[in-house]
Amino acid sequence: MVHPLEKTSGGQIVRGLFIGRFQPFHNGHLEVIKEMASEVDKLILVVGSAQESHTFEDPFTAGERHLMMSESLEANEILNYYIIPIMDINRYKVWVAHVRSLVPPFDVIFTNNELTSTLFAEAGVEVRRPKLYDRSKYSGKEVRRRMALDEDWHSLVPAPAAKVIEDIGGVRRIKTLSGGKA
Amino acid sequence: MVHPLEKTSGGQIVRGLFIGRFQPFHNGHLEVIKEMASEVDKLILVVGSAQESHTFEDPFTAGERHLMMSESLEANEILNYYIIPIMDINRYKVWVAHVRSLVPPFDVIFTNNELTSTLFAEAGVEVRRPKLYDRSKYSGKEVRRRMALDEDWHSLVPAPAAKVIEDIGGVRRIKTLSGGKA
Amino acid sequence: MVHPLEKTSGGQIVRGLFIGRFQPFHNGHLEVIKEMASEVDKLILVVGSAQESHTFEDPFTAGERHLMMSESLEANEILNYYIIPIMDINRYKVWVAHVRSLVPPFDVIFTNNELTSTLFAEAGVEVRRPKLYDRSKYSGKEVRRRMALDEDWHSLVPAPAAKVIEDIGGVRRIKTLSGGKA
Amino acid sequence: MVHPLEKTSGGQIVRGLFIGRFQPFHNGHLEVIKEMASEVDKLILVVGSAQESHTFEDPFTAGERHLMMSESLEANEILNYYIIPIMDINRYKVWVAHVRSLVPPFDVIFTNNELTSTLFAEAGVEVRRPKLYDRSKYSGKEVRRRMALDEDWHSLVPAPAAKVIEDIGGVRRIKTLSGGKA
Amino acid sequence: MVHPLEKTSGGQIVRGLFIGRFQPFHNGHLEVIKEMASEVDKLILVVGSAQESHTFEDPFTAGERHLMMSESLEANEILNYYIIPIMDINRYKVWVAHVRSLVPPFDVIFTNNELTSTLFAEAGVEVRRPKLYDRSKYSGKEVRRRMALDEDWHSLVPAPAAKVIEDIGGVRRIKTLSGGKA
Amino acid sequence: MVHPLEKTSGGQIVRGLFIGRFQPFHNGHLEVIKEMASEVDKLILVVGSAQESHTFEDPFTAGERHLMMSESLEANEILNYYIIPIMDINRYKVWVAHVRSLVPPFDVIFTNNELTSTLFAEAGVEVRRPKLYDRSKYSGKEVRRRMALDEDWHSLVPAPAAKVIEDIGGVRRIKTLSGGKA
Repeated sequence: MVHPLEKTSGGQIVRGLFIGRFQPFHNGHLEVIKEMASEVDKLILVVGSAQESHTFEDPFTAGERHLMMSESLEANEILNYYIIPIMDINRYKVWVAHVRSLVPPFDVIFTNNELTSTLFAEAGVEVRRPKLYDRSKYSGKEVRRRMALDEDWHSLVPAPAAKVIEDIGGVRRIKTLSGGKA
Repeated sequence: MVHPLEKTSGGQIVRGLFIGRFQPFHNGHLEVIKEMASEVDKLILVVGSAQESHTFEDPFTAGERHLMMSESLEANEILNYYIIPIMDINRYKVWVAHVRSLVPPFDVIFTNNELTSTLFAEAGVEVRRPKLYDRSKYSGKEVRRRMALDEDWHSLVPAPAAKVIEDIGGVRRIKTLSGGKA
Repeated sequence: MVHPLEKTSGGQIVRGLFIGRFQPFHNGHLEVIKEMASEVDKLILVVGSAQESHTFEDPFTAGERHLMMSESLEANEILNYYIIPIMDINRYKVWVAHVRSLVPPFDVIFTNNELTSTLFAEAGVEVRRPKLYDRSKYSGKEVRRRMALDEDWHSLVPAPAAKVIEDIGGVRRIKTLSGGKA
Repeated sequence: MVHPLEKTSGGQIVRGLFIGRFQPFHNGHLEVIKEMASEVDKLILVVGSAQESHTFEDPFTAGERHLMMSESLEANEILNYYIIPIMDINRYKVWVAHVRSLVPPFDVIFTNNELTSTLFAEAGVEVRRPKLYDRSKYSGKEVRRRMALDEDWHSLVPAPAAKVIEDIGGVRRIKTLSGGKA
Repeated sequence: MVHPLEKTSGGQIVRGLFIGRFQPFHNGHLEVIKEMASEVDKLILVVGSAQESHTFEDPFTAGERHLMMSESLEANEILNYYIIPIMDINRYKVWVAHVRSLVPPFDVIFTNNELTSTLFAEAGVEVRRPKLYDRSKYSGKEVRRRMALDEDWHSLVPAPAAKVIEDIGGVRRIKTLSGGKA
Repeated sequence: MVHPLEKTSGGQIVRGLFIGRFQPFHNGHLEVIKEMASEVDKLILVVGSAQESHTFEDPFTAGERHLMMSESLEANEILNYYIIPIMDINRYKVWVAHVRSLVPPFDVIFTNNELTSTLFAEAGVEVRRPKLYDRSKYSGKEVRRRMALDEDWHSLVPAPAAKVIEDIGGVRRIKTLSGGKA
């Protein structure tokens, strides 16, 4: 386990930002966070669309997603992160300022999304591409689909996140909300 | 240092909630957080009025306040906390639901504020009174007043929070915003 | 005609809640309201999506829908109701608190919608299933379709509601808005 | 008791609008409503600032205020009214349209407030001045002051409204919120 | 070039309103504006959905659209106009009041849109139909499609607007946002 | 009269921004705009708090203020300006991005306000101090005070702005709204 304050010697603290909806948190997220957390002193994890919950696309509240993430990261001895829920503002030209006002100062954003990349680059932030994980398997959509159809979803999700989902009755909620969409 | 997952043996995780504006984070906050953090497994610290900044009453952004807090808590080896910024909703009857949707599930709220106490109690949450610190000295208002008038404020604020304030030019900002209000 | 204050003898007043968009109010609504109004002392009828009007899916203002309902209920000698327009909040986890702040205290919600049922049950409200009417005939969508295509819609709507629709030029409005959607 | 549908013979239904905050509903309100309700077929009572509650100036939710009003009006055999909660929009030039979208069509507004009078007159609505009641006695402010100070407030409020206030613990709430303001 | 204050002799100033999204400003817009500007003393050009940008359907900010318009109109010696950005309000029944509060008083609206026509007519505004241009060629959608696919779009857009688009890197933005939608 | 496109030879167009509430537009505004308009190619005049009207502090709508300004500027042969109404966002850290999304790109902001200066400087915009006019005489507050008390206000306001105020019944509105505040 790397203690964040030991990592940079004599230099400036480097903070990175990563934005996701985490509906739910899955092994693909964990894998890429592991890598990013090793590159920076502090990794700021933004729980996007924080206002959403109880729809098939966004079943879990920001607080529930926070718990899935923090429990999984602690279990994996990743400790140099902040988790920050951010509600949508629906005005792209103002969105970077919205995010910046709510999170600690950061130096780099990790994203493979072209729009996010464009908007932060225009605002003068360094953009890095995080490594790609297998999106056909590790995607919130696929996890939700499997939950709705009683297929295996545990193998896609860190065990502590799965426990949170079960504690809050998440599978039943997703079935209620699926309405034939899966 | 108490590791949060070791504290409760065989039992349920207990999470507590504490809400403040932290404009800025001061020694009174630190003192009461130390106590609360020893009473629960996880302490959820809500940075209230997160949308505010750059006024004399609310000079710092939610992200800046987050950094003051996390740096100070780490330096004091308090690690079992979550910091969550929450923007005002300005509808008290809906506010508890607003908070609940954004933070992990919690069992108890710590507050000495009568309105907060009433609203959470009505919603079925256990209310505990945190110990009181000396408010004539330890208040955001007093710290801001001293900053505006070049009096000693460092003695009221944890050193890591003071460093954050200085890194972001916080004293100059407060002087600009004071406009004779101090 | 049952006077609401005579119905419960010696006991507590029971209030029930029913939520609809009522675009427009039709005989299916009337039928189910008759039944619910006989089960409780006061029936609170929430006009949902109250901010909407002048679209093909939501052609009528909340005020126009209110009038269709109150005129039809009076004509049917149902008097133990309140009609309350509520604008959407688009945050499901906060929605129950939003509704609760705007309507008188209630004991039971009538709904066949799974999401509504889940959200109110999570908030500790008793959920009852109202009887089902023939949705292939009695649905706002079908009424609007018939209006747009000059088919018979009067047989689906209480006469006083039809009169309101005609007084406000509702059929012409729906034709203008249909744009080939019917 | 006058049944609203019997009152106008052969003519057009006339609807009037009256706006108040009703914090709480008092005898002055009742008196003026009695008069207005006798002048029009239907009286639309708007519960303004519907989003407010749990402050000393606005202690009661819109739903609670609705109940105080409907119980008092029924007890006084005034039945030709609608009660409609409306949240503030804080843009005066748009406010009349906001109100109009949420209430049934109306022909006249009753108001002694100059701004309200100006705005509705500009929008082409007939303005009538309701009779004035003794505002030194019958005002929400005076009722709240007496509640906070344990003085007699029952004599200022219709008995059914007083019962609602007591059922919801309203006096205790006001004392909690008064904070020396009374 | 017609100076606006010279045009009406002895009479009342006539102001007209025209609403568009102008994503981007094209020759069809220019053609119809020429005609309308010759009919009234002042033409108020509302840049609608002003909050939108950086999506494929709404790629340009209100400020960027303003510049495309003003540069093109000046180059064509049309000077009797105001350009006013207006953010959506998403409540049709309130929308006319929203527009009216933000623009100078106007006498006539130019529109071929049925909903716009209905809403302004209901509010007592004279509606005129502007002449129709060839929409298969001159539409924002067609211009954006051509940009995304590297087809000729310059022939559809006034040269000064094309220069603005190139100065801000508009084609690249549209390609980034197209995501296979073109 | 200087035509904006002739002023800069061979170089880049320079645009400046100036923000005011203009309640109402007065000779102090005119004087400083004259100077600023001579320094840049295009002057962007932001009508701030555009959502406000019909209060004593903010009596006029954004559209009315626009008209006062454009009529006065034209009469003074200042033509190289844009007038853009902007509604408040009440989040200072996001405000610069809000403004930027709604106005054409600009290079310099003219302001003597410390907060505005700080926020735009932090965002990398060049700040220039416009010359100061006599604020004891030329202030919206003083003009409104004189209107409310029937003192001479015409001498403080450009004649075309005074005509707009009279055309819309502005003095009567201010008297209605003053309520003893003047």
